[in-house]
Amino acid sequence: MKSLDICLSPDLIHLHEPEGRTAVIVDILRATSCMTAGIGSGVHHIRPFASLEECVSMREKGYLIAGERNGQKVDGFDLGNSPFDYMDVKVQGKNVAVTTTNGTVAIEKASGADEIIIASFLNISRVAEYILSLENDVLIICAGWKGKVNLEDTLFAGALTERLIPSFTLACDASGVALAAWQQMKGDLTGHILSSSHAKRLKRLSIEKDITYCLKSDEFDALPVLRNGSITGI
Amino acid sequence: MKSLDICLSPDLIHLHEPEGRTAVIVDILRATSCMTAGIGSGVHHIRPFASLEECVSMREKGYLIAGERNGQKVDGFDLGNSPFDYMDVKVQGKNVAVTTTNGTVAIEKASGADEIIIASFLNISRVAEYILSLENDVLIICAGWKGKVNLEDTLFAGALTERLIPSFTLACDASGVALAAWQQMKGDLTGHILSSSHAKRLKRLSIEKDITYCLKSDEFDALPVLRNGSITGI
Repeated sequence: MKSLDICLSPDLIHLHEPEGRTAVIVDILRATSCMTAGIGSGVHHIRPFASLEECVSMREKGYLIAGERNGQKVDGFDLGNSPFDYMDVKVQGKNVAVTTTNGTVAIEKASGADEIIIASFLNISRVAEYILSLENDVLIICAGWKGKVNLEDTLFAGALTERLIPSFTLACDASGVALAAWQQMKGDLTGHILSSSHAKRLKRLSIEKDITYCLKSDEFDALPVLRNGSITGI
Repeated sequence: MKSLDICLSPDLIHLHEPEGRTAVIVDILRATSCMTAGIGSGVHHIRPFASLEECVSMREKGYLIAGERNGQKVDGFDLGNSPFDYMDVKVQGKNVAVTTTNGTVAIEKASGADEIIIASFLNISRVAEYILSLENDVLIICAGWKGKVNLEDTLFAGALTERLIPSFTLACDASGVALAAWQQMKGDLTGHILSSSHAKRLKRLSIEKDITYCLKSDEFDALPVLRNGSITGI
């Protein structure tokens, strides 16, 4: 039977093995939600960068540049880290270079995986359906917040586990923890997330509208994957 | 208001700050359960050691020596890592030197804390009552399994959080995750733990009786604390 593993924080990646597996990157607030919304809204491709400087340098290659640091849009960038920025008509058919606090780190830590999928509530059904069609073992990597476990990524990992569990064995206890937390909280997902420490931090930046949107299921049928350094839909 | 933080794995300790706090060490299967049972059964004091060699060297100072590696008693040692070993009449009034896979690591990572408390389901009420009597912020450190998050330590952290929450603010999302998982699973704690990956590993060593015992609440009124390198009851 295929195996399903969850890495609750990029700082625990040394205990897991992306090699030979399909890695599923989760940064619900808001990197992977933005990438889903972008690819689902007609962005051609998205390139993630760890540093601001690399990201800015892509402008001369015709890229729109997107980024946040500590939850706030970088001054002078074309897009911030709101999914609505990625759904704007101005990004259709364009390429986007992006740098984020946590999401880019999680993607880098997954290098070595057979395939890297970008997942969020906004495309959860498509992600689940795709994973169920594969023969591969799966590692869900939660981006967390500066290394710490966060609630929204953990709950998404639990929600995805709930959909996959009939076809997978759980490789470690983190899957059981995430699944139980999801089952306990799914009846009022938005309420729980809005009262979590990470969301409170973001709420101070007045993005409650973004948070509510990022918790909606299946707004898009897009399946963004990372290939040769770029995220495109398949 | 006092702050409550949870470190789900010793490999995440760099993100937390034991300094100035009361640290609560949790290794339900089985180090902190054994320590609780030992101090509750009349062991004079227990000294934890990272290495087998240091542990063995304490024999010449009149210590009984206890230890496990990968869940199994070390050959030639007086005690293994079963709480029943620590409740035997032969340990009453004696000192025990112990080395364990995960528990000792978690204790070492807590150095710098104002005070280090040894907690388990076996003394959960006494631990909660003591913490509620303090003015200190609290950091619960789960021993996990070789760095990975495990179910039983996370659920204990959730159970303790449930008792403390009216008097504390939660410092990070890990507390919310642990609490939700506990609330989801507490109706059949033994069933869930016995089907977890860590317990399955231990079950192969035929210690189901130990596991069931370690999940009982309040078998002891003991409060073991680490002072000057030794664990004694207060």
